[in-house]
Formats: sequence, structure tokens, C-alpha cells
Amino acid sequence: MQLHSFFNSSTSYRVRIALALKGLPYDYLPVDIRTGAHREPQYVANVNPSASVPALVDGEFHLGQSLAIIDYLDARYPEPRLIPLDAHERARVLELSYLIACDIHPVDNLRVLRYVQDVLGASPEQKDAWYRHWVAEGMAGVERLLARDAQNAEGPWCFGAQPTLADCCLVPQIANAQRMGCDLSAYPRSLAVYRHALEHPAFELAQPQRQPDYRV
Amino acid sequence: MQLHSFFNSSTSYRVRIALALKGLPYDYLPVDIRTGAHREPQYVANVNPSASVPALVDGEFHLGQSLAIIDYLDARYPEPRLIPLDAHERARVLELSYLIACDIHPVDNLRVLRYVQDVLGASPEQKDAWYRHWVAEGMAGVERLLARDAQNAEGPWCFGAQPTLADCCLVPQIANAQRMGCDLSAYPRSLAVYRHALEHPAFELAQPQRQPDYRV
Repeated sequence: MQLHSFFNSSTSYRVRIALALKGLPYDYLPVDIRTGAHREPQYVANVNPSASVPALVDGEFHLGQSLAIIDYLDARYPEPRLIPLDAHERARVLELSYLIACDIHPVDNLRVLRYVQDVLGASPEQKDAWYRHWVAEGMAGVERLLARDAQNAEGPWCFGAQPTLADCCLVPQIANAQRMGCDLSAYPRSLAVYRHALEHPAFELAQPQRQPDYRV
Repeated sequence: MQLHSFFNSSTSYRVRIALALKGLPYDYLPVDIRTGAHREPQYVANVNPSASVPALVDGEFHLGQSLAIIDYLDARYPEPRLIPLDAHERARVLELSYLIACDIHPVDNLRVLRYVQDVLGASPEQKDAWYRHWVAEGMAGVERLLARDAQNAEGPWCFGAQPTLADCCLVPQIANAQRMGCDLSAYPRSLAVYRHALEHPAFELAQPQRQPDYRV
């Protein structure tokens, strides 16, 4: 398999965690989204019509969108399973994952921050306030979801005794928020999961600073 | 079952389509997100910790996030199935659904448009340009995904001979873009799916103007 990835992309980071948890080897193909490599006609035509990272290549099959990729990996390589089979358990895992993947990350990603600054003319302070506003809104919801079920309130993962898709989404989001200087002290349960996860070899391997295209 | 919904919310609209396709009866509980009813402490504590619509109540089980709800409905009430079981087929359906649900809709929803206008001080013209920019970026990707596989290029649905989650996401997105006055002529395949879908009774029933809380 091949993964088109950018070291600092949260969505690429999610898939790197999933691949590492499943112990699947892959070739790492860097796509520099800062210079617009994900919009190059050849990449869009041959790799990913969504014009984004990550993109997985599994034989002849090309697939974009991080959560679709992780679902696909779970179907093809089900050990260990990242999205539970039980209807209620999977609902809880997906609910938290989507809160991050739909309500927090898209509003704070690179292309949106650039538009806020370059087109709307926001100051650096306004851009930072924008970022923190959506993190604060979303993380408050994450913390409430984690606290809802007593058996999850103890951790160490978001749900149950093993990492799931929810952890694949939470860890990159928190890493991103820390990089942007957000105060996360109001989300102790989320931070505890994050710290626990980083001690796991799969999460450690998937970090931005461990990727071949990493730079400061 | 009960559905907490707002007539004009695209995410609520997705779930209403899914419920109608499956022929599941439910009580409609309006939540006026324009006045902030989704942020009321009682709603957040008792119904949806995500502080958003839609939220499904199925017996004792409360669930937020539209795509988690549709996945749950597919697990519990699998006829007709909206997310295919085959690994490759479901990957295609999810890829398109996430392009809409993660890359287009979140950047253009009510709370973000309000922040752009009220906090960043964008003019109405700048706000409209913001909306259209993300629709144009995302819909170009949708159109490319629909055109990729020859067997889908003919329609009438996004993928295959029956409606799927992808159609549940595409129809509200196009309805929303039309309401905001976007020129969608560059996306003929998407428009053809949209027009076909609106002739289907389930899609017709789920429309904003058919909901009890509808107002102009």
C-alpha cells in the first residue's frame, strides 16, 4: 500500500495511526499541501479527485477522505478493529469521531485559516481567536461525550479497553490545538486519553515529527 | 423514535431522508438553532452533549451527529441499506459523503457564517463570496468523484441503482447551495442526481418546507 500524506495534516495523521495500529506496512508519499501539491492536475486526476490528503492506494484501488480510508482498512484488515461492530458501541465511537472530523477540524484547517487571513483580511490575532473559538466549542462537546458513560470516564482510551477510530481522531486534534497554543486545561479527560495514547508505539510512530517530510 | 431537528439544517435533512427511505415513523421535535435552542443547558445535558442538531432518541439511546445516526439506523434497521456492505462499494459511498460532510458543509453552516459576519466584520458580499468559494471547491470534487467510475456516470443515483448515504448528503448540500444563490451549472452530474432524488417520495417528504417548524 501507499499513503499520500503530509506530516502536519491532522487527517493524514489519523490514517497513519490506523495503519500503525493494524501493523500494515506502506510507502509514504509526501504531498506538500503548503505549496499546493494536492491541487496539481496530475495528483487530482490520478490519485485523489478530492484534491486533498490523505489518499490511500491499495493495489488498483485509490481512496481519499481519512474516515473512509479507516473504514476501508477496518473492512479489509479487521485486526485490531477500530470501529466496533455492535450498533450502540459503534454509534458512540462514530459520534465522537464526527464531532471532531465535522465540527472542529474542517473550520480550523490550513485552507480556511488562509482564507480568513488572506481574503477576509483578519489580523494574526483574529486568526488565532478564530482557531481557538472552534476548538473551545468542539472540545467542550468532546469532553461531555467522554464523561457521559460512567464506564468510559476512567479511560484510558475514549471508549472501551482498546483504541478506536475516536482515538485516531482525538489525538491529532489535540496535537494541532497544542501547536496553536490553545489552553486545553478545561478538557482533562481528553488530555488524559491523549497522554496515554502517545505512550502507545502506534501513536508514537504516526506523529508528524516521525514522518520523512517533517520540517520545523 | 424521536428526532430533534431544525427544518433548515442540512444535517437534520440528511437524517430525515434516511428515516423516510427506511419507512421509520418518528416524532418530530423542533429545535430552533437560529435562537440557540441547541445550546440550552437542558438540551445539552439531556439530549445531545454535542449541542447540535440532529439528535435521535431510540428508546433509552440518545445519539447525535447525522452520519453516526444514519450508520446506527443502517445497523438497526438495515432495509433498505444505505451504506453498502462490500468494502469497495462502501468506500466510494463514504468518500463522497465525507467530502460533503467534512469539506463543504462545516465551513458554510450557520454558526460559521455568523462568526464571519459578526466577529470578523465581513460584509454581506464577503460572506456570500465565502459561502460560494467553499461550495465551488467542494462541488468540483464531488463532480469528479461521480464521474470517475463509468458505471456511475449514468446515474440516476450517486452510486448504483439505489439511493445511499451519498445521496442523503448530496441533496441537502445542493438545496442549501441553491438557496444561497450559487451557480451550480458546472456540476451537471450532481444536479441530475438532485433532480432525480426530489421525485422520490422519501426525499420529497424530508424537504425543509415539509417540516412542521418550516417558516419563510
